[in-house]
Amino acid sequence: MKYYAKPLNKLINELSKLPGIGGKTAQRLAFHILSMDDKEALDLADAIRSAKESMTYCSVCGNLTDTDPCAICADESRDKSVICIVESPKDVVAMEKIREYRGYYHVLHGAISPMDGIGPDDINLKSLIVRLQDEAVKEIIIATNPNIEGEATAMYIARLIKPSGIKCSRIAHGIPVGGDLEYADEVTLLKAMEGRREL
Amino acid sequence: MKYYAKPLNKLINELSKLPGIGGKTAQRLAFHILSMDDKEALDLADAIRSAKESMTYCSVCGNLTDTDPCAICADESRDKSVICIVESPKDVVAMEKIREYRGYYHVLHGAISPMDGIGPDDINLKSLIVRLQDEAVKEIIIATNPNIEGEATAMYIARLIKPSGIKCSRIAHGIPVGGDLEYADEVTLLKAMEGRREL
Repeated sequence: MKYYAKPLNKLINELSKLPGIGGKTAQRLAFHILSMDDKEALDLADAIRSAKESMTYCSVCGNLTDTDPCAICADESRDKSVICIVESPKDVVAMEKIREYRGYYHVLHGAISPMDGIGPDDINLKSLIVRLQDEAVKEIIIATNPNIEGEATAMYIARLIKPSGIKCSRIAHGIPVGGDLEYADEVTLLKAMEGRREL
Repeated sequence: MKYYAKPLNKLINELSKLPGIGGKTAQRLAFHILSMDDKEALDLADAIRSAKESMTYCSVCGNLTDTDPCAICADESRDKSVICIVESPKDVVAMEKIREYRGYYHVLHGAISPMDGIGPDDINLKSLIVRLQDEAVKEIIIATNPNIEGEATAMYIARLIKPSGIKCSRIAHGIPVGGDLEYADEVTLLKAMEGRREL
């Protein structure tokens, strides 16, 4: 593209590699960055660099962290008897935001997906088995996503853990709060019916 | 927010300052950046830094450039008799993309807007007057945006230039190509009627 000066072109190119950022948005962001204060723009560049350099994965649970073990694993006040299994570090944040769960986490970094060639050995499962031997874990809550891969992973883990006698539960699927029966898809409605509880 | 480690939190914060990037998108981008190759992420950081450090404004036309004068002003093969006046460097790119216009540009970096306290002295107008004295300019094409501020700016410049005898034109407003009469707003339709040309 000869329309832009070289450094600007490079910036637009790099920005458009981000998810959900197309050519037009990348151009808009690049022009905005050039119109920002020097300090602000360099802060952004430094934030990317330092996040990339200092963030790593917790050796215990696999969560993203700048310390090892991560702040959650290092928090002695949490409930040692429960581990919640999630697919990604984003899910840990989502869980933490409900401010109710006080156990620990285990991040799989993916889900079993034979179609994509991802088997049980390709996700962070081995360290979970090690944790189950070491710790006083009473319950495993499987909070993988409610899609084919997530369900397959949940089934696999449940079967894997069963012999150890540890309780294994799955988060509920159903109509989201504030949702509308009329617009719920059939599978969700079926799950909601199956998961009904006595009042 | 205590949900994120500090460097990650800082990155999310910085990203969410960008236009059109809310909290959720900033989080998604930040997690994506952390999952990128080291090289890719640092390339992005470097692109921001180097664009910010090497890009400046052309002393002749005010366009964003990494050389002074900019590539367009330095291009001797262009038509010296026409200057197209636009509000922002983005508009220069839009104009260049039509691959038809071969004259020079003048970037105002804004438009006159008394409501926001922006007068004729606050936009890049003085250097235009200097250019008109120096150069063999025959026509000024005013391509400010078709809104109140852009129109006011166009009127102001036209009146300013009139005494010099230089031809002053305004780009056409009307129904966009591929547009639908049915969905055009009244003002646009009115402009289209006013601007009608004999076939």
